[in-house]
Amino acid sequence: MASFTTLSQSPPKLLFRQLFEKESSTYTYLLADCSHPDKPALLIDPVDRTVDRDLNLVKELGLKLIYAMNTHVHADHVTGTGLIKGKVPGVKSVISKASGSKADVFVEPGDKISFGDLFLEVRATPGHTMGCVTYVTGDGPDQPQPRMAFTGDALLIRGCGRTDFQGGSSQQLYKSVHSQIFTLPKETLLYPAHDYKGFSVTTVGEEMLYNPRLTKDEETFKNIMENLNLAYPKMIDVAVPANMVCGLQDLEPKAN
Amino acid sequence: MASFTTLSQSPPKLLFRQLFEKESSTYTYLLADCSHPDKPALLIDPVDRTVDRDLNLVKELGLKLIYAMNTHVHADHVTGTGLIKGKVPGVKSVISKASGSKADVFVEPGDKISFGDLFLEVRATPGHTMGCVTYVTGDGPDQPQPRMAFTGDALLIRGCGRTDFQGGSSQQLYKSVHSQIFTLPKETLLYPAHDYKGFSVTTVGEEMLYNPRLTKDEETFKNIMENLNLAYPKMIDVAVPANMVCGLQDLEPKAN
Repeated sequence: MASFTTLSQSPPKLLFRQLFEKESSTYTYLLADCSHPDKPALLIDPVDRTVDRDLNLVKELGLKLIYAMNTHVHADHVTGTGLIKGKVPGVKSVISKASGSKADVFVEPGDKISFGDLFLEVRATPGHTMGCVTYVTGDGPDQPQPRMAFTGDALLIRGCGRTDFQGGSSQQLYKSVHSQIFTLPKETLLYPAHDYKGFSVTTVGEEMLYNPRLTKDEETFKNIMENLNLAYPKMIDVAVPANMVCGLQDLEPKAN
Repeated sequence: MASFTTLSQSPPKLLFRQLFEKESSTYTYLLADCSHPDKPALLIDPVDRTVDRDLNLVKELGLKLIYAMNTHVHADHVTGTGLIKGKVPGVKSVISKASGSKADVFVEPGDKISFGDLFLEVRATPGHTMGCVTYVTGDGPDQPQPRMAFTGDALLIRGCGRTDFQGGSSQQLYKSVHSQIFTLPKETLLYPAHDYKGFSVTTVGEEMLYNPRLTKDEETFKNIMENLNLAYPKMIDVAVPANMVCGLQDLEPKAN
């Protein structure tokens, strides 16, 4: 037990992994406090197809998964949170209260989600959907530097999520990004829910300079978003109903 | 100029980006010393198809690209080094002397490749090809902690490159990984040239425990590698001749 005491007195140390799901080009993020004796961990935006890969990695790294979180109700893939809850007892699913979805834990702006001595702060970033949040690593000397923000579809690398479904609003998205993301320190690392061009990370400073949509004034941004002429999301009719119950729609009889 | 002086006196600070090319599932790595006034940068294993993406990022980040490097003569994609040299005057292509390929700079084991106040150390890791090297960030208080190793195809996440072409040898690969990679500190971050399952990084400690091939004894490893029954590499007849001249085969008349 002596070594445990030593471990818990050392500063928290983030273990971080970025994982990619090809079909929907989704990034799943694994974070853990490796200096804590339990190595408590969380997954952000897990995908149903890659749950076994993700849980195997959690096991190999000796982590204790405590949360399976979503940034929002996804329209392009089924979340892995339901499957994860079935496979790892005790894991709690997390989503924003504003999403209207089912989950074990509903978060609101300003809430802190702790894992060991590390934490994520919840920021409301609606606009892609009405319930989108951005999870930001804590502010403080014991928290990762630079800070890291998991932006979901609110901000993508040199892009942003569409605003024409699920209570989306270009006006709201513009406000969300400018007030909740672009106000973070410029060196903050931004990790989106998707990338389609092979990028893995960006920074606040970079997007403030080079995001082709969000560097424009609000009126121009609204015009851009209204004229994207995107196809109807091919997975939306399957994914949204599933994700409103945290991917548990097929499991419900067993889960209850 | 005063701010330049201040900058060059601060400790070197690594800018790091992992970039993915879908067709060949290749990772390209961008590294730069951001604290140096010139922000000197290098690209490891650039792919011809994604050269414009990579160079645009270099430009947006205000970096000065000085090296376009390969870990080896790739058989699954055409290197971007030739195109890069054509587009950014002054960039030098780098490959191992043992590769037998053309390049501006030939590196040998123990060589240091400096960019600003940061450097990469060259380790010979033949076995996938006869000229494979692993580039490892420097050892020292001013160099990134934990260390990072760019392993090419010598070590993949929970795998390794095939050994049945280009002077490959399973015996040599086994020795390379055990003597040159597994001897690095366990927390060393390993960045491979490819991943096919959505993983982005691993560590020495993890691969020593969980690599399904390289945790075996040498004889078992040789048997595994001899019985992979892999298809003939579909790009090899195009990629290898091109990469032997650093992707410059079509440009040579212009380049000379």
